[in-house]
Amino acid sequence: MLDAAEADALRDRCTRFVNGHGPVRAASLLAGIAPDTAVDTYGDGGVVAELEAEVAALLGKPAAVFLPSGIMAQQAVLRVHADRRARRTVLYHPMCHLARHEEQALERLHGLIGRPVGEAHRLIALADLEAVAEPPAALLIELPQRDLGGEQPPFDALEAQVGWARSRGAAAHLDGARLWESSAGYERPPAEIAALFDSVYVSFYKGIGALAGCCVAGEEDVVAEVREWRRRLGGTLYGLWPAAASALGLLRERLPRMPRYLEQARAIADAVRPVPGIRVVPDPPQTPMLHLLLEAPAEAVEERIRRLAEEDGVWTFRGAGGTPDPAVQRVELAIGDATCAMTADEVAGVLARLVTPR
Amino acid sequence: MLDAAEADALRDRCTRFVNGHGPVRAASLLAGIAPDTAVDTYGDGGVVAELEAEVAALLGKPAAVFLPSGIMAQQAVLRVHADRRARRTVLYHPMCHLARHEEQALERLHGLIGRPVGEAHRLIALADLEAVAEPPAALLIELPQRDLGGEQPPFDALEAQVGWARSRGAAAHLDGARLWESSAGYERPPAEIAALFDSVYVSFYKGIGALAGCCVAGEEDVVAEVREWRRRLGGTLYGLWPAAASALGLLRERLPRMPRYLEQARAIADAVRPVPGIRVVPDPPQTPMLHLLLEAPAEAVEERIRRLAEEDGVWTFRGAGGTPDPAVQRVELAIGDATCAMTADEVAGVLARLVTPR
Repeated sequence: MLDAAEADALRDRCTRFVNGHGPVRAASLLAGIAPDTAVDTYGDGGVVAELEAEVAALLGKPAAVFLPSGIMAQQAVLRVHADRRARRTVLYHPMCHLARHEEQALERLHGLIGRPVGEAHRLIALADLEAVAEPPAALLIELPQRDLGGEQPPFDALEAQVGWARSRGAAAHLDGARLWESSAGYERPPAEIAALFDSVYVSFYKGIGALAGCCVAGEEDVVAEVREWRRRLGGTLYGLWPAAASALGLLRERLPRMPRYLEQARAIADAVRPVPGIRVVPDPPQTPMLHLLLEAPAEAVEERIRRLAEEDGVWTFRGAGGTPDPAVQRVELAIGDATCAMTADEVAGVLARLVTPR
Repeated sequence: MLDAAEADALRDRCTRFVNGHGPVRAASLLAGIAPDTAVDTYGDGGVVAELEAEVAALLGKPAAVFLPSGIMAQQAVLRVHADRRARRTVLYHPMCHLARHEEQALERLHGLIGRPVGEAHRLIALADLEAVAEPPAALLIELPQRDLGGEQPPFDALEAQVGWARSRGAAAHLDGARLWESSAGYERPPAEIAALFDSVYVSFYKGIGALAGCCVAGEEDVVAEVREWRRRLGGTLYGLWPAAASALGLLRERLPRMPRYLEQARAIADAVRPVPGIRVVPDPPQTPMLHLLLEAPAEAVEERIRRLAEEDGVWTFRGAGGTPDPAVQRVELAIGDATCAMTADEVAGVLARLVTPR
C-alpha cells in the first residue's frame, strides 16, 4: 500500500479515475444536499422519513430505518433476531464484513457469536449449512460476496439456503451493502431479492456514492426494535438529515445506472482477458465489480500505480492486496461514473500497465 | 407539548426565537462547511484530525477523538475505564443523560451498571459519594447539571468529589455536553476544568449549534481504545468530515461568545424576576442557560405559546415540561445568538406572556 498522504497527493493531481465515482470531494457531495432540505429531529421526520419510505417501497418491506453505518445496522438487527429466538449464533461467510472488519462487535457488545460457515475462497453452499448442528439465531448472506469479486449464487441456490434457515427457525438476513449491484447481476428488482429475507441492510456510500449512511428494512416490529438499538448505540443523532438527503438524491440518480455499470464491468473483463498476467475474478463479472489478480510483486505494482498517476494522470488503486502467492497481487475494481467516463479499452490499457515492466 | 407538525409550522412563520441560535436550518449549516474541506477516510485525516487536535489543545489533554454522538462517546470511554479496573459500576446523578435518555445502553451493551448517587432535585454532594460502599469504575459528573437549570457546584466542591473518586481508584469522567457553558460560569478556561478529570466529553450541536458530533479527550492510550469502541459501535463512518467541519467552524465562532450568553442569561433573570408567577432556576443563572417555573396549567402555557407565535411572530418552546405541581410548568432557556438578538427586556416580556391570561 502507498502511504496515505502520498496516495492522496498523487490522486489529487490525476484527471481520470478507474474506480467508482472518483475521489470523495466535499464540494460535490455538499452540492447534492438541497439548502431547503427538510431536517429531522433525532431521526424523526423530514428527509429521513422520506428516504425511509422510499427505501421500504424499493425493497418491498413494510418499514425501513436509516442508520449512520452498516456496522451499527447489522449488529442491531441481528441482536433483535437473536433476542427474539433466545439464540446467540449468527452464521456467516468467513470473509464477510462482520468476520473481518468489525472488531468482534457482535461478541463484545451483544454476546452474540459469529460462526463462519463454508470456506473463505468460495460461496456458502447448502451443504455447509446442513453441517451446522446448533440452532442458529440468524443466517447472514452477503450479496454479492465482495471478497470473491462480487460473485453470487444462482438464485435457486439462494432460495434453498434461505429455506434451510427458515426450517431451522433462524432469521434470514441480507447483507445488501451492494444489493444495488446484486440486483443488476440477478436482473431482478431489489424487492425480489429482499423478499427472500426477514431483514435487509443496504448502504448508500458504496455503489451509490453518497455520504455515509444505510437502511435496515423489514417487518414493522423488527424495524421499530432496531430503532431502539440505534438509540442505544448512539446512532439516533440530533440530525441525520445531511446523510439522508445525500443518499436520497444519489440513490435516485445512480440506482438506474447499475445495469450500465455491469455492462462496463463485462466489457472491461473482455478487454483485459487477453492480457498476459491478469486474471479476472469472477470471470465474467456477475455484478458491477470485479477483482483482478495481477502477476507482479507488490512493490512493482505500487511503482506502476505511482507512474500511471504521475505520467498519465490516471488514478487506479491505493495499492494491491496480497494473495497466498507473493508473486500475485489482488485489486478491486468497483464500476461507477468515473469508470464509465473511460472506454473499457482505456481501462484495460491502464490495468495492463500494472503488470508490464517499463 | 404541541404536536410536532403543528409546532414546526408555527415556528416556521416566526421571525424571532428566544431559544439558542433559532431553528435548525439546512441552508445555514451547510453554508458553514467549506466546499474545499479536507475529507477524512474512516475518521483519519482531514478536518477530523484538525478538529481533534484543536479540541485536545483546548481541553489541555494529550489526545481527542471525534464521534458521531454523546451516547456513543460516553459509553465507549466508560467501558474503557471499567475494563481497565475490572469494575462495573458507574456513579452518576439520577437525572443525568445516561440515566434518563440512553435506554440502558451501558447495561444492555456493556454489562455496566449505572448507579445514581444523591437526589434528583439537587447536585451530588461529597456525602453522597462517601455513602457508596462498592469500589466504582468511574464517577461521572455533568457540568453544568442540565436538569437543574445549569447549576454547578463550587469549584472546590468539584475538586473534592474528583479527589474522592481518585481515592477509590475510580476514573473521574466529565460529561461536558455543556462544558463551554460551564467554563463561562466558572470563569475558568475549559482546560482548567478538564484538568480535574481523566476523560472529558464535549458536544458541538448544543451550545455551539453545529451538526451532531462530539469529542472525547484524555490520555493517548484511553483515547486510542475509545477509537476501537467507536469502530465497534458503528461510529467510524466512511466520512465524518461534514460534522467535524461544521463543529470546527462554529466552535471558533461561538465559544468566545459564551460569556456574552451568560450575561444575557443573568439580564433576562433580572428582568423576569419581578414578574409574578415566574421563578428562575437557578437564580441567578450560573451558566448561559436557565429553567423557568411557570405558574400556569400546561394547556394554558401551550395556548399562549401558540398565540405568541401566531400574533407576535415569536417562537418560544415546543411546550412545557411538567413538575410535581400540576399548576406549575417548567421550560428550559438556552442562551444563544437568537436570544441575544432580542433585548433581555423583550425576552422577559415574552416569557411574562406565558403566565398571563389574555
